[in-house]
Amino acid sequence: MKCPRTQYGHGFFEGCALSFETGQRDVLGRIGVFETKSGKLETPALLPVVNPLAQEIPPRVMFEKLGSKALITNAYLIRRRAGDTGVDDIHDFLDFPGIVATDSGAYQMLRYGEVEVGSAEIIDYQQSIRTDIGVILDVPTGSRASRTRAMETVNETIRRADEARKVIKNRDIAWVGPIQGGLYPDLVAYSAREMAKRGFDIYALGSPTEVMEQYLFADLVDMILAAKMNLPFSTPLHLFGAGHPFMFSLAVALGCDLFDSAAYILYARRGRYLTQAGTLHLGQMEYFPCKCDTCASTSPDKVRSLPIAERTRLLAEHNLLACFQEIETIKESIVEGRLWELVEIRCRSHPRLLEAFQRTQKHRAEVACCAPSTKRKGILFFDSTSLQRPEYVMHLERLLGDYVPPREARVLVLAPVMTHRPGDESSDILVGMTKAGKGAHVCLYSPPYGLVPSELQDTFPFSQTETLEEPDPEILKVMAKAVQSYLAKNRTYRAVVLVRSDRGWHVRYAGMCKSVCTKLRVRFSSVTDKEISSGLTGIGRKGKRYLGKNTKGKPVKRRK
Amino acid sequence: MKCPRTQYGHGFFEGCALSFETGQRDVLGRIGVFETKSGKLETPALLPVVNPLAQEIPPRVMFEKLGSKALITNAYLIRRRAGDTGVDDIHDFLDFPGIVATDSGAYQMLRYGEVEVGSAEIIDYQQSIRTDIGVILDVPTGSRASRTRAMETVNETIRRADEARKVIKNRDIAWVGPIQGGLYPDLVAYSAREMAKRGFDIYALGSPTEVMEQYLFADLVDMILAAKMNLPFSTPLHLFGAGHPFMFSLAVALGCDLFDSAAYILYARRGRYLTQAGTLHLGQMEYFPCKCDTCASTSPDKVRSLPIAERTRLLAEHNLLACFQEIETIKESIVEGRLWELVEIRCRSHPRLLEAFQRTQKHRAEVACCAPSTKRKGILFFDSTSLQRPEYVMHLERLLGDYVPPREARVLVLAPVMTHRPGDESSDILVGMTKAGKGAHVCLYSPPYGLVPSELQDTFPFSQTETLEEPDPEILKVMAKAVQSYLAKNRTYRAVVLVRSDRGWHVRYAGMCKSVCTKLRVRFSSVTDKEISSGLTGIGRKGKRYLGKNTKGKPVKRRK
Repeated sequence: MKCPRTQYGHGFFEGCALSFETGQRDVLGRIGVFETKSGKLETPALLPVVNPLAQEIPPRVMFEKLGSKALITNAYLIRRRAGDTGVDDIHDFLDFPGIVATDSGAYQMLRYGEVEVGSAEIIDYQQSIRTDIGVILDVPTGSRASRTRAMETVNETIRRADEARKVIKNRDIAWVGPIQGGLYPDLVAYSAREMAKRGFDIYALGSPTEVMEQYLFADLVDMILAAKMNLPFSTPLHLFGAGHPFMFSLAVALGCDLFDSAAYILYARRGRYLTQAGTLHLGQMEYFPCKCDTCASTSPDKVRSLPIAERTRLLAEHNLLACFQEIETIKESIVEGRLWELVEIRCRSHPRLLEAFQRTQKHRAEVACCAPSTKRKGILFFDSTSLQRPEYVMHLERLLGDYVPPREARVLVLAPVMTHRPGDESSDILVGMTKAGKGAHVCLYSPPYGLVPSELQDTFPFSQTETLEEPDPEILKVMAKAVQSYLAKNRTYRAVVLVRSDRGWHVRYAGMCKSVCTKLRVRFSSVTDKEISSGLTGIGRKGKRYLGKNTKGKPVKRRK
Repeated sequence: MKCPRTQYGHGFFEGCALSFETGQRDVLGRIGVFETKSGKLETPALLPVVNPLAQEIPPRVMFEKLGSKALITNAYLIRRRAGDTGVDDIHDFLDFPGIVATDSGAYQMLRYGEVEVGSAEIIDYQQSIRTDIGVILDVPTGSRASRTRAMETVNETIRRADEARKVIKNRDIAWVGPIQGGLYPDLVAYSAREMAKRGFDIYALGSPTEVMEQYLFADLVDMILAAKMNLPFSTPLHLFGAGHPFMFSLAVALGCDLFDSAAYILYARRGRYLTQAGTLHLGQMEYFPCKCDTCASTSPDKVRSLPIAERTRLLAEHNLLACFQEIETIKESIVEGRLWELVEIRCRSHPRLLEAFQRTQKHRAEVACCAPSTKRKGILFFDSTSLQRPEYVMHLERLLGDYVPPREARVLVLAPVMTHRPGDESSDILVGMTKAGKGAHVCLYSPPYGLVPSELQDTFPFSQTETLEEPDPEILKVMAKAVQSYLAKNRTYRAVVLVRSDRGWHVRYAGMCKSVCTKLRVRFSSVTDKEISSGLTGIGRKGKRYLGKNTKGKPVKRRK
């Protein structure tokens, strides 16, 4: 797989004025600035979906009061109502001084079947109303399409993209290339590769609305990564129709830069109140768990007593602010290097979201390959769900791929890190052993790390990991697995001496390492930290037992 | 253990005007109204700690702008500065029209050793300045005390409580009885029982400040429950010196009603910005992830450029609002019956908090016994951490304690719930079997429930549990354990027939149930759902094989 970090192709035309610059990164998320003819848009960004014909919140209020710098509306609906020449400038039409994106009617096609507009026509129309970001008329796959039908939508969208290239005149409009393929990740990947060849300014993953309505978040993970890994990282990725704010952070962590959402108003109309972790029903609420301008000055009781239009407007304002607040939370977490931690929290909002998060397990190598490998802050490591963290995956990859143990290493001394017992110096004593006995190689263990060469103990992420004192069984298994892979790769070790305390998980870990050694026919013994503190004799004796004359260079023969 | 729900004793004096009424409940948390002479205080409530001599945020601003209905200040410090007669009414002195609580100087004792005031003196003084909530002069245990020292602090506090009873005249002041014992839960329990006998209006758990500064949240869980379970539930429980808002929800879920905290200002002075999930450093921030009045109108950059006093005030205002917002979030989650879910989320803010949450495992029986056993909303069940949910613990207790299977039941048919395959009717067919074959008793399994008698399948919480489609290994183990305990208790079953699909966890579950049956010498067989849908023949045959004539009443002989 070609690494998508490679910058291949950007912008519809050479010398295009549109630029996308990215700054701070975490996981696959990044903070970026996308330039449009109406100004700069900082990403990740949410574009509220605005009905061009009737708005509960006037676009100017969105801009001035709610801080919405961009919105998305529907060119197809405007044209159907106002005719070809009724609108001169979409910004004036909506009374919105920010950035306007227009959709082409593809969503209407998905919902209501064929639309009465041609592919070329709608591009022309978007140019004529001076949109900032335009979408070609793609064919959405949806979530119910057969594989054959899905392939058809992919191919037809590609055909229309080629057609669009001929019609597009305005070089100051950013054109969006939609990716189709629906629930078939291989088709999404193909669609992404083909669209990428055509050099759009923004790529957008289609069809998630239906997928999200059915809470198929795990499938969405596959879809997003299939697209992301086949698109240039230098171009923004838009997620069409992203719904509830509780999934924004996951989408950003997987590489989405832009969202549009009508959730704020759709939920408001049904009396629903959005929070970062879920949805509440105004009808049953007694407290507003929010300090936004709208909520701070009123109460659920008062809002319930308002006329329905006013009530919907207030709910919509809060809902939109809740979405924007989540975007700010995500941006700050990227700055802090804590995006993964945020996703771990948000995925506890619903079991389907946790399943989606677990699905990233399947993609951990791709994600780790493209994520920043160090950060200025430590990482918080919780339980087995944290095992997919890019920093951890990278650590294992480096340990089992690149790392070469000292040439003379014959006995692997595995010693625990004693972080929680101040004054306990046994690890330091052990580290000193590397010099003392030439054949001994001291490595440390500390959840979730099964083995870290002591000479690397101060490197990231090992020394910057905060975790539970008791690893769960899954983590313990992965730790022992690391020892197994390490010993299987580095066949020069003749023996393992494990130092342990009498804590429950130390004993279990020693047992697991013993099994690993038995399997690999490496000698194993363990000593307790008490034996160590009474003069290192235990380990000295046990270590020496395995160190004969044959300690220099020559690999040790062992039965296979 | 006497159930603390029993209402034994309340109020310092008989006929006392102070009342505490509780309404909605979830886990051990509840919404209550505590009456004071200056008005009603809704709980859970946070009382900001206000330095009586110098305030960054004027108390009136707290009341009017930030919505703080109550605060706590220090009677000892006021008296030391103003003398015995300098202050007539604490409300006027602070210019605060809400409810004022006063501490007695015990915290100063903990920090700076002995204080220069007598126990009777400080009670007199609190009466003279017309406080609403007063604290007797207790002796804090702290987190470093030896067991002997801890016992001394407990006994001395009890002695002073008796002394206080003689001095207290004002019946309209709510008096707080502090619970000591520090990190020794048995001493905390003893202290709570002794103080409860003395009938205070509020009980308060002492010493957590130090415990929390060292992030010993798991020990705090033991402390809180030791106190709570030995106090009357009809009296509010205050947690002295609760710090960061990320632990409020856990404390409320364990039964705390009141908090005081100086975190808002202490953190602000060090340039720290509180969120519900952690602490950010203003120096490194680029975005405010908050829409409160203070944050919405500015940016980290602007706040950094302010003079230090102004900067601290702004941060303190935000921090206090963040604390209040968390209290509102907790209250609404009690209303929604989603307090447990909130705690699961908050405990992902730091590994030490997750450890604390796991510590509740030890206390699950006590918690389940006192928590509401049904609720109007379903429960979200994530992974093994959710196994401690009171609703789940209660379900197991009822199943393994109270439930009696149908008299004629001889074959246990264990069938999966097919929630995620619409149109699949096999469970319904199986349920019908209860009538068809008299000796067959159909039970259902669905994570996290190992076994639910089909006649109870519509009861709470079974039918209202939303969980992951794939249970984790720990949950699978607990499910099989439930089957084992059930069969061990109900020895009338001769055989188990398990229906499964070819999904991975179904196969694993069947294997585990088989082991269980082997251990208990109960016959076991499994059929696949495909066999079932081809006419129930499989199960019919297998079921019949174990149903002889001996199906009515008589227990079946089995080798032990």
